[in-house]
Amino acid sequence: MENDFTRRLVVPAETRIAMIIMDGLGGLPREPGGKTELETACTPNLDALASRSALGLTVPAGPGITVGSGPGHLAIFGYDPIQYEIGRGALEALGVDFELGVDDVAARGNFCTLDKAGIIVDRRAGRLPTDAACELLDVLQTIKIDGLELFLRPVKEHRFAFVMRGPGLVDALTDTDPQKTGVRPLTVQALQPSAEAAARAANRFLEEARCLLAGRQPANMVMLRGFASLPRIPTFAERYGLHAAAIALHGMYRGVARLAGMEVLPICGQTLEAEFATLEECWHDFDFFYLHIKQTDTCGESGNFDGKVKAIEEVDALIPRLLSLDPDVIFVGGDHSSPAVLQSHSWHPVPALLFGKHIRPDGIPEFGEHACLRGSLGVVPATHIMPLALANAGRITKYGA
Amino acid sequence: MENDFTRRLVVPAETRIAMIIMDGLGGLPREPGGKTELETACTPNLDALASRSALGLTVPAGPGITVGSGPGHLAIFGYDPIQYEIGRGALEALGVDFELGVDDVAARGNFCTLDKAGIIVDRRAGRLPTDAACELLDVLQTIKIDGLELFLRPVKEHRFAFVMRGPGLVDALTDTDPQKTGVRPLTVQALQPSAEAAARAANRFLEEARCLLAGRQPANMVMLRGFASLPRIPTFAERYGLHAAAIALHGMYRGVARLAGMEVLPICGQTLEAEFATLEECWHDFDFFYLHIKQTDTCGESGNFDGKVKAIEEVDALIPRLLSLDPDVIFVGGDHSSPAVLQSHSWHPVPALLFGKHIRPDGIPEFGEHACLRGSLGVVPATHIMPLALANAGRITKYGA
Repeated sequence: MENDFTRRLVVPAETRIAMIIMDGLGGLPREPGGKTELETACTPNLDALASRSALGLTVPAGPGITVGSGPGHLAIFGYDPIQYEIGRGALEALGVDFELGVDDVAARGNFCTLDKAGIIVDRRAGRLPTDAACELLDVLQTIKIDGLELFLRPVKEHRFAFVMRGPGLVDALTDTDPQKTGVRPLTVQALQPSAEAAARAANRFLEEARCLLAGRQPANMVMLRGFASLPRIPTFAERYGLHAAAIALHGMYRGVARLAGMEVLPICGQTLEAEFATLEECWHDFDFFYLHIKQTDTCGESGNFDGKVKAIEEVDALIPRLLSLDPDVIFVGGDHSSPAVLQSHSWHPVPALLFGKHIRPDGIPEFGEHACLRGSLGVVPATHIMPLALANAGRITKYGA
Repeated sequence: MENDFTRRLVVPAETRIAMIIMDGLGGLPREPGGKTELETACTPNLDALASRSALGLTVPAGPGITVGSGPGHLAIFGYDPIQYEIGRGALEALGVDFELGVDDVAARGNFCTLDKAGIIVDRRAGRLPTDAACELLDVLQTIKIDGLELFLRPVKEHRFAFVMRGPGLVDALTDTDPQKTGVRPLTVQALQPSAEAAARAANRFLEEARCLLAGRQPANMVMLRGFASLPRIPTFAERYGLHAAAIALHGMYRGVARLAGMEVLPICGQTLEAEFATLEECWHDFDFFYLHIKQTDTCGESGNFDGKVKAIEEVDALIPRLLSLDPDVIFVGGDHSSPAVLQSHSWHPVPALLFGKHIRPDGIPEFGEHACLRGSLGVVPATHIMPLALANAGRITKYGA
């Protein structure tokens, strides 16, 4: 609602905004009274930038809500992550870097084990190795369904992404996974008449899969759940008047950026340094850049406190290269918290730094959870960031006289 | 929504609230690491009051949104400025101190130049001097339209305010300014059947204006746009149970106060001192006073940092006179920021001071942007202020038992 109002007021400008997202940035102290990962990290460049910036903490989707990367990114991009929900199937496809189109219907797939009567005895087919799953997916990929394209992509162990592409497919479909053993897999039901073609196609795939996998062990059937198309969201161009680019190494983030209408840039290599090199090369071709850093979250989720500290320090070391591009506005923050002590995503507010040539600096010479708490941005919904970035970039005109 | 809830709980009390609004109060440092206008100003009285008050910063209409004075004032008066939008025509009339009634339909008018075929060749009639426009408005003021009163007021150069007053006028009308040259002015169209009488009246005015101005140069026609009546808003009496008075020297602010149902007091003179004298004279006749200071914004918008500092110091010098009236609640703040370095309104949060006999003092002995950041009000929507002022004035009863 709020950002749809902003849209009325957006005006063009010759300014550039850089949004640096350290995935899972927010943390927790390792011991009582201690420092978080960000506070532990030696970040002279971010600290110097902080002193010239407005600080705060962002809340992705509401108090106490832990988000995945999909909703976390939508929020920081200015989209209400509850209004614009990305369904499970679509997230699964995005997560393996599949270029999901807006008309595709995706689902989470998994291999399972049926007994001779067709009853489910293992919903995960003994968590068969990913390699074995890949071989089976090659077999299933031979299935043809008239008028549709079918895409199967391995995820991990028994899990895979399932995508149907074709005209008029609708994602209002029921799961075939009954979520328990001792019963048969269900068939796909259309939840509305417009989804009947998609239901027939999915059931046709399942029948053929049953034939092709018959007699194999442990995986002799597949189940599908969480059917979903991508939500339709206004693009960065439509909503903010921004020609936006994304620099991210992993599929999920590239997918969410594409959903927001960003151009996903090719990167020569798999390093943070390569990401910054791409930023430099393309600096004059866009007016908004989203640059994603994965390592902070990877370390947070695996409980590697020191690794997360190091990942933050590596970002800090590259900040001078960002500054030398002379962006009009810089945002440094995260999509959610991933404290190493929790080994998972969490609901804790995420440190946020907003620099701009017209910012009112808080004068706080440190970038960390406690320092940010004293900042003028406050503890705010993550959706506040984009309008503030636009304002600081001279891209929002006055409301009323 | 929030304040409509407050309305349920409002109770009478023998208390007085003074709201001192320094227009465009919020500022920015002149140089990196420097102080804002308010921080630069020597304000011993406001600083002493601050130490006994709750401090914070107000956000008029949402993050990143720069507001005009109309929405900025509505917000500080407790009305959601997006829900209660004041249209362009109404703002133009308010801005020249026209006493716009709730049934009036106003528009922005401007003189233009047509060629012999009736095609627009200059949408601003060469920005003719205001004096020349005044003479032409005298001519146009002779136009009579049955059953209606017509008011024309000069604004600046080619611009004027156009107001129709009469029973049953509705503002759902299209512009006649096509926003480009090389075409004819449009006629006014009713956007709904109830607006047809207003459309006929406006078109009748335009036909007569064409005849009266024919052959003149450069201004031989007028165009009208932004037709708008005042929004209907609950008055201070209805919403807050307050008998409210406004002390303001300029039309826009008197108009917005009138819209909120305040009585606009006459002022003997054009000075800040005269405004405070009016406050003193009428102190026992009302229980809410809005006192507006324009000079802070005028200096901010013209880039006069030192002038804005001086304007704030002049207000500070009058604070003892305010205190000697012994108000139960004092609010000192602004409708928006107008940093001198930007020479314009801006989106930055506005310093706010709330004093009351039952306030929990923050004990911060300074009134300034950074000091306010440490205050207990937080960085909050401006609409939070009125309920807090009412509560401190003993005018809100308990919710629930």
